[in-house]
Amino acid sequence: MDHAAGEAAVRRQAQLTKPPGALGRLEAVAIQLAALQGVERPSLERVRIAVFAGDHGVVEEGVSAFPQAVTGEMVKNFARGGAAISVLARELGAVLEVVDLGTVNDPGPLDGVLRARLGTSTANFICEPAMTAEQLEQALATGRAAVERALAAGTQLFIAGEMGIGNTTAASALTCALLGLSGGAMAGPGTGIDASGVARKAAVIDRALALHAERLSNPVEALRCLGGFELAAIAGAAIACAQRGLPFLVDGFIATASALAAVRMQPGVRGWLLFSHASAEPGHARLMQALDAQALIDLGLRLGEGSGAAVALPLLRLACALHNDMATFAEAGVSEKQ
Amino acid sequence: MDHAAGEAAVRRQAQLTKPPGALGRLEAVAIQLAALQGVERPSLERVRIAVFAGDHGVVEEGVSAFPQAVTGEMVKNFARGGAAISVLARELGAVLEVVDLGTVNDPGPLDGVLRARLGTSTANFICEPAMTAEQLEQALATGRAAVERALAAGTQLFIAGEMGIGNTTAASALTCALLGLSGGAMAGPGTGIDASGVARKAAVIDRALALHAERLSNPVEALRCLGGFELAAIAGAAIACAQRGLPFLVDGFIATASALAAVRMQPGVRGWLLFSHASAEPGHARLMQALDAQALIDLGLRLGEGSGAAVALPLLRLACALHNDMATFAEAGVSEKQ
Repeated sequence: MDHAAGEAAVRRQAQLTKPPGALGRLEAVAIQLAALQGVERPSLERVRIAVFAGDHGVVEEGVSAFPQAVTGEMVKNFARGGAAISVLARELGAVLEVVDLGTVNDPGPLDGVLRARLGTSTANFICEPAMTAEQLEQALATGRAAVERALAAGTQLFIAGEMGIGNTTAASALTCALLGLSGGAMAGPGTGIDASGVARKAAVIDRALALHAERLSNPVEALRCLGGFELAAIAGAAIACAQRGLPFLVDGFIATASALAAVRMQPGVRGWLLFSHASAEPGHARLMQALDAQALIDLGLRLGEGSGAAVALPLLRLACALHNDMATFAEAGVSEKQ
Repeated sequence: MDHAAGEAAVRRQAQLTKPPGALGRLEAVAIQLAALQGVERPSLERVRIAVFAGDHGVVEEGVSAFPQAVTGEMVKNFARGGAAISVLARELGAVLEVVDLGTVNDPGPLDGVLRARLGTSTANFICEPAMTAEQLEQALATGRAAVERALAAGTQLFIAGEMGIGNTTAASALTCALLGLSGGAMAGPGTGIDASGVARKAAVIDRALALHAERLSNPVEALRCLGGFELAAIAGAAIACAQRGLPFLVDGFIATASALAAVRMQPGVRGWLLFSHASAEPGHARLMQALDAQALIDLGLRLGEGSGAAVALPLLRLACALHNDMATFAEAGVSEKQ
């Protein structure tokens, strides 16, 4: 974080041909990006979206509306360009990278998909920890490696998305552990389960919280016991972004749970996070509150894949363009406030 | 409005590779645009932004934080590319057209500015109607003509912006007349007056409402007595868009007041309006409620010029891209909900 660049951006905003404050939160976004990028005029031309995919052992408890095969099927759909995030990345001119961390339905080698498989799925966390210590370490490292590739390509903003049938259950359980909540406080419909499914999900989370209770005060252990391959990769990416000075735009429910885990592991991560959207998944508001975060958009999205962050990206880009390219009062010969 | 196209769009949304409803309001936006454009797959490639500028006689009552010369100065700034809306139009690849309807500080002939001056400003509406019947008719016709030019250029979405020192006072007064409110219910800080300025503004509005009371039940007369050249042009443009079948994206406080006047003049206008943002000007919420409208973004913007609509445009475009370009479950070989 570069305070001098942030202050230069504040001074620039005050000189632009508009009433002070009239661009609302777009002014704060431009100033924040200036401070993070260490320049008076920030840029978001080069954006990288990494989508991490992984399956979840807990799906055998009947917590998801979609069959588990969908995770691998969607990896193929990402690669072929037919998924929401594929369309968004194309429209935004962002680089899309897909990382297969382990799916029940192995899509096999695919162009544009990095194979970093740690198994076919996590373990069912109502029986044992979701990941071994080695799997967790590898998943975190996979996230870090994605950030290193992004930096090598000159990326100015990193977005982490995810795909994993069952991962709202894992993200809810992880959040419960980090915030000291019970399953009922976080379980929601995910991709579309009904009220009895939500109740089952809450009970499954409570069983897992009880099983792993002694380990959950440590955020690394909470992530290992209750998280997932893709959640851990996102946490690893967020930590790497903070360490390497790359702004990280947080997507919705799953990504925010991972970001919270990352912040609990390394508090300095918080300063490198920008927040994109308010998810329709009910528990997201609690996560945002815990991170003292405010979303830019609230459109009822609940798709994941990084889609909410991608949809918000044009607002960040326009904030930069306005900040960088508007004339000052002096340049335009416009009278200032009386 | 083409119901068959809308229904085809609804069916298409249900087949895309995402949980039903997971794209939230972006799904509704795409379906609405499909129905309005009469095609299953809508497009917003060609967008026109017309900024209407005009001065206000009521400014002599001390209702604005900026000097009146700013209206003409900003017309020059639009033309030179330094204003917020100039930057946004460039970034969005939208055509920007500026229409000078009459300013105290005449900017003179400028490239990219259409001269359609009806005087140097409206009359001070606490003494007499803001416009003569002829001025109102010409302002409405100027808005209609902008829509005709847009249609000739193949425009798929029309945005009307405005510039006019004092126009939050005019828009507030007009809204009070249309909704039966007193000045205190609508007067706000505008470009940045303090609490005593807001109280003065409310009192000025109440005097105008009393002076013109007998005429205000007729929305045309309300617009003539209390509006402004640019407000009338926006109303004329909205009516023309509805008559000619061109979707109209409503900007913030001023444009929404004009849109409400247009809807009161021609109720069929409502169906052709899309709403972009929630303005920080306090009275905007009341206008949106009166139009049963929901904003897409709420970023604390209060600049006018069409800037809020322009900032929201990428969300509408991404809604179309997702709707048009995502793979269906069948195309992608992805399993559907259990």
